Amino acid sequence: MSSTYGEILKLSIFGESHGNAIGMTLDGIPAGLPVDLDELQTFLNRRAPGQHEYATPRKEKDQPEFLSGVCNGYTTGSPICAIIRNTNTRSQDYENLKDVPRPGHADYTAQIKYRGYQDPAGGGHFSGRLTAPLCIAGGLCKQWLCTKGVQIAAHISVLGGIADEPLYLDWTAPDLSMIGGNFPVCNPEAGDKMRKAIAKAKEDGDSVGGLIECIAVGVPGGLGDPMFGGMESRIAQIVYGIPAVKGLDFGSGFTGSYLRGSQNNDAFYVKDGAIKTQTNNAGGILGGITNGMPLVFQAAIKPTPSISLPQQSIRLSEMETASLHVKGRHDPCIVPRAVPVIEAAAAIAIMDAFLSNPEF
Amino acid sequence: MSSTYGEILKLSIFGESHGNAIGMTLDGIPAGLPVDLDELQTFLNRRAPGQHEYATPRKEKDQPEFLSGVCNGYTTGSPICAIIRNTNTRSQDYENLKDVPRPGHADYTAQIKYRGYQDPAGGGHFSGRLTAPLCIAGGLCKQWLCTKGVQIAAHISVLGGIADEPLYLDWTAPDLSMIGGNFPVCNPEAGDKMRKAIAKAKEDGDSVGGLIECIAVGVPGGLGDPMFGGMESRIAQIVYGIPAVKGLDFGSGFTGSYLRGSQNNDAFYVKDGAIKTQTNNAGGILGGITNGMPLVFQAAIKPTPSISLPQQSIRLSEMETASLHVKGRHDPCIVPRAVPVIEAAAAIAIMDAFLSNPEF
Amino acid sequence: MSSTYGEILKLSIFGESHGNAIGMTLDGIPAGLPVDLDELQTFLNRRAPGQHEYATPRKEKDQPEFLSGVCNGYTTGSPICAIIRNTNTRSQDYENLKDVPRPGHADYTAQIKYRGYQDPAGGGHFSGRLTAPLCIAGGLCKQWLCTKGVQIAAHISVLGGIADEPLYLDWTAPDLSMIGGNFPVCNPEAGDKMRKAIAKAKEDGDSVGGLIECIAVGVPGGLGDPMFGGMESRIAQIVYGIPAVKGLDFGSGFTGSYLRGSQNNDAFYVKDGAIKTQTNNAGGILGGITNGMPLVFQAAIKPTPSISLPQQSIRLSEMETASLHVKGRHDPCIVPRAVPVIEAAAAIAIMDAFLSNPEF
Amino acid sequence: MSSTYGEILKLSIFGESHGNAIGMTLDGIPAGLPVDLDELQTFLNRRAPGQHEYATPRKEKDQPEFLSGVCNGYTTGSPICAIIRNTNTRSQDYENLKDVPRPGHADYTAQIKYRGYQDPAGGGHFSGRLTAPLCIAGGLCKQWLCTKGVQIAAHISVLGGIADEPLYLDWTAPDLSMIGGNFPVCNPEAGDKMRKAIAKAKEDGDSVGGLIECIAVGVPGGLGDPMFGGMESRIAQIVYGIPAVKGLDFGSGFTGSYLRGSQNNDAFYVKDGAIKTQTNNAGGILGGITNGMPLVFQAAIKPTPSISLPQQSIRLSEMETASLHVKGRHDPCIVPRAVPVIEAAAAIAIMDAFLSNPEF
Repeated sequence: MSSTYGEILKLSIFGESHGNAIGMTLDGIPAGLPVDLDELQTFLNRRAPGQHEYATPRKEKDQPEFLSGVCNGYTTGSPICAIIRNTNTRSQDYENLKDVPRPGHADYTAQIKYRGYQDPAGGGHFSGRLTAPLCIAGGLCKQWLCTKGVQIAAHISVLGGIADEPLYLDWTAPDLSMIGGNFPVCNPEAGDKMRKAIAKAKEDGDSVGGLIECIAVGVPGGLGDPMFGGMESRIAQIVYGIPAVKGLDFGSGFTGSYLRGSQNNDAFYVKDGAIKTQTNNAGGILGGITNGMPLVFQAAIKPTPSISLPQQSIRLSEMETASLHVKGRHDPCIVPRAVPVIEAAAAIAIMDAFLSNPEF
Repeated sequence: MSSTYGEILKLSIFGESHGNAIGMTLDGIPAGLPVDLDELQTFLNRRAPGQHEYATPRKEKDQPEFLSGVCNGYTTGSPICAIIRNTNTRSQDYENLKDVPRPGHADYTAQIKYRGYQDPAGGGHFSGRLTAPLCIAGGLCKQWLCTKGVQIAAHISVLGGIADEPLYLDWTAPDLSMIGGNFPVCNPEAGDKMRKAIAKAKEDGDSVGGLIECIAVGVPGGLGDPMFGGMESRIAQIVYGIPAVKGLDFGSGFTGSYLRGSQNNDAFYVKDGAIKTQTNNAGGILGGITNGMPLVFQAAIKPTPSISLPQQSIRLSEMETASLHVKGRHDPCIVPRAVPVIEAAAAIAIMDAFLSNPEF
Repeated sequence: MSSTYGEILKLSIFGESHGNAIGMTLDGIPAGLPVDLDELQTFLNRRAPGQHEYATPRKEKDQPEFLSGVCNGYTTGSPICAIIRNTNTRSQDYENLKDVPRPGHADYTAQIKYRGYQDPAGGGHFSGRLTAPLCIAGGLCKQWLCTKGVQIAAHISVLGGIADEPLYLDWTAPDLSMIGGNFPVCNPEAGDKMRKAIAKAKEDGDSVGGLIECIAVGVPGGLGDPMFGGMESRIAQIVYGIPAVKGLDFGSGFTGSYLRGSQNNDAFYVKDGAIKTQTNNAGGILGGITNGMPLVFQAAIKPTPSISLPQQSIRLSEMETASLHVKGRHDPCIVPRAVPVIEAAAAIAIMDAFLSNPEF
Repeated sequence: MSSTYGEILKLSIFGESHGNAIGMTLDGIPAGLPVDLDELQTFLNRRAPGQHEYATPRKEKDQPEFLSGVCNGYTTGSPICAIIRNTNTRSQDYENLKDVPRPGHADYTAQIKYRGYQDPAGGGHFSGRLTAPLCIAGGLCKQWLCTKGVQIAAHISVLGGIADEPLYLDWTAPDLSMIGGNFPVCNPEAGDKMRKAIAKAKEDGDSVGGLIECIAVGVPGGLGDPMFGGMESRIAQIVYGIPAVKGLDFGSGFTGSYLRGSQNNDAFYVKDGAIKTQTNNAGGILGGITNGMPLVFQAAIKPTPSISLPQQSIRLSEMETASLHVKGRHDPCIVPRAVPVIEAAAAIAIMDAFLSNPEF
């Protein structure tokens, strides 16, 4: 486990925020996939820092170098390794974080687990920066899934308490083209309010969290396995590997648990020779297995723990309470940048399920 | 994957609801654990059908027979296999479910995945009955965790829309003894209202869902791994293996995503030489690794899809809409019986994390 | 790992020689395989004790009971669990083996690993009896492989130092029907000599070992993965899980390492539109991947450590040398009974490779 | 599986011989191991090309760059990624190898598996060059094992049919310092004859193979698991991942299968309060579990398939026999360079077994 995921598709993510490089190896991707590097870069740019006014101004070009597994523009079938050099590093004294851990961050748990040997700079291996290699892997998987007719998109469903309009989906002919970009919402007005909420939090030296809804259309029925290999388990394992995710539900999820069975069950019907359900409270998954309806889940992203307001911590060397004032400029909200990361995670899980089900 | 879980502790669950037997093998449990069969049976009884007035009246003694791995009252270190015979089987014609699948059940997805070869009786391998072997495994893990000072308990936090009182926990000296039994709630009055909600749903031929909050105290700091081996990922993979779970969050979870960082971050302090946090919005997990505070998560259970109200389905053989009237008597609410199952899943995940972290 | 094997096909073996039952769960076998129980029993009988004059006279009917995963004669797609009850148990005082371990057996290593909690009777989980569930799994895999045109057979290539004739194989149209049964050899005269060698060893209170050659024909080219997922690695992991196997090589193997490249390389040629090699020193595997030629390997089986001659051991409780006289009657040679076990292991590994390679 | 190995220690190897870089990620190595880069380089140099007169003259500095997981000279606990740039690449037209595959190489199997998308240059991912990252991982594991008192060494036991003297080992106080270097043998005279055999093969445009014996001393008793997690299975899976290995046995192995039980069983005795065996035919492993004696195994390395003599192949595009004359200069024998690779594989397997056994 640890920083490794997958059954047939084996993803291994490595790197520390201020180390030499971050990157990933992806073993098990079939040979012959044409790799569109421009499309991949466009996808990575959605996650990259410095893309909009409220994001962290650290300018790091998230441009991957492929070390293996791609030859003449196609996957070779051998493991793909891609890295991103860290160029903007060690500007601060991070040793202090080992002694006075930031609330809400992994500083303290890393310290007790690794006994001071962890690389503390910028959060080390726990940095949100590690989601860049996850997006490299996920971007490749998205391209592979396209060849199977699967499209994945996500939008900010709630940010700073402001809700986006529910994604309108004609379940019989879903179209995801309306969402995308660096601040993906269905309702531009809600998006404006969200931006203001971020600006206000920034002004206050604080941060905000939110929810991201992710949808995969074109997933064939029959994907996934019962119990621990079910689609929910597969997606949950990787989505919870994304720093700051603290909640996840599928279809009607938490809301559905307040309903009655007669409200939550999705009635079947036949349309153009295909079996559909009239609602999609199941989120496209029954018994862990896809039913051919869009796969829908929602992830809860906690407010960024890095805030500039003073906080109460402890000085470990003296076992005393200490006030902490985190310097530097940080994202007052990582939700917009987390959207492609959620898509990437979904793509990896769904592609692995394809490859693990020999009948596909 | 599929019906197999774990890194060092390998759990494999087998069986179909109306087959010869259901059971589990658990490989990797250390030798020398004294197995208290009475305590295990008490735990299993919390899940067993027919325990209270609103549960399904199917009377199946969930009494495991141990085939291996336990000798003279102690685990031998070899794989444990335990089975429960199915004695109350095939009373109905279930072949019809292959043709007219029940909404909200796995009948349809099983049909497309297994092409008619699945055992349809009582939901086959997708039956909630498969949580009995999960409880055998989890019950053993709970006994092992006790020897490490870890206690796990869960309660019904919401049922039929009625909320239990939040579990009062003195974080510095948590006591879980107040919850337990077949209908575990913190506030008996809320429990009464919940029972009435079940009775009303039953009367209406309908069903209700709910939320279960699970807490593990005594978990040492430093357990779990970054990214995909984090405690959230480990717990999520197994909890989502439980039929009917459609949502999961940790600590403040979904609620926390509406907060600001200054509200959601947990301030550190020192108490009696130990490091604590004043709140526990992190649910005891930072960066995937435990911080020594109680590990807290909440699972959303959908309303039982088996209802006696007529529903719209399809007749697959004719690809036509068909009205379905599910016969037989079923649980109008599985939330109470799911409580020990959630505890079992937590215990398995936490024990596996212990064994996978050689420093413990 | 431990008693669990496989990537997509997950095999878990459980049981102790004198416990309640031995058995296996096999998760991941596709739905719809017709299970021929008679053919399976015939296969299991080749391994069962008491089948010929020189085998251990312990009469245990190795008749599996299927608890799950098979319905109406077909696999359901859910995990298969099958068990064999132990009926002929605890006739001896085995506690002594914990104190005075048998040379060449796992008694001593089990004692240090499990600190006395292991079930010592008949070798416990380390007993050769655990190969019966391996044969259940392997027998099912053989039936699945038949549907893909793959045939697997093995013969005793050396026993007690006496060599069988090399298996004549017309590589272009291999026929394995000449081998099979309870004492499979190509040359009946060699078989007679082998039987005499067993009789002589028995008379002397001693035992003999041997080699088993296993061949799989009809394996398509392109199966397996590079490096640690290569066919050699896959087969080796499971074959070395068989008690008493201490050596394994593929194709020309050890012999080939004495040759020159010009002798060991297999020249390609075309026959009837298919690519073949004139020799098969590669054993059908190049770079870990099958080349379409018969897959050939040889396993070395050590002489049974149970002998009736007195041996030098130690009394652990006193840390003193002790003479050991093993009572009871044991196989003076397990090689004939190990032949179907080797076939079973090969079948499991090859089927798992099929399922793990989505292109098949 | 594929290019990924390990249970707790997860090794992933990537790269193609003439791609941008080769490398490895190693996830699961505990924090706090001091990394001695000089010692690691000395170890890697034993494998590097161009080290002695008969090795391939390709001059590639096998100097790893660490991208992650090492900070201030210590492992951080996060995944380690190290790469080696390929500097001496694409000097030849390798496309021809896709059409006329070299006998004994993976050219043909790669072609059928990857359908022409593989990187054919220098063998691509199947190149022996991929053992360099294996040695990086293994070299780190050797350093970790040293802290546990485990020493691993290997020597050329047979080369070109010439046998080295058996390694003299006083089992009660084994000393491995006599072997090491670029041409490790116990008997220098045998080494001279081996060198001449290589020279003669080279002169003939041919190649030779051999055997490598590997020994690990200081391995505590109780390591490993029964059946498929036994030490033989663990070591076999990784050793067979090394290109050119076609055989493997433990202790008396193939030879032992010609012995009687009374000859092959290792008698126990007590020496200085510790339990030893008088012989070590078990190779330090009983029932898959170490017994505290030196762990001994032998690997068979096939003669290098690259020879300059003309060979018969096929032209795939025309499905016709074609004569192949491999140009360029290649190792007439890779056995000496494979010695540290075998040590590396053993170190990785043994360290993973340590970490997977929570009791150590």
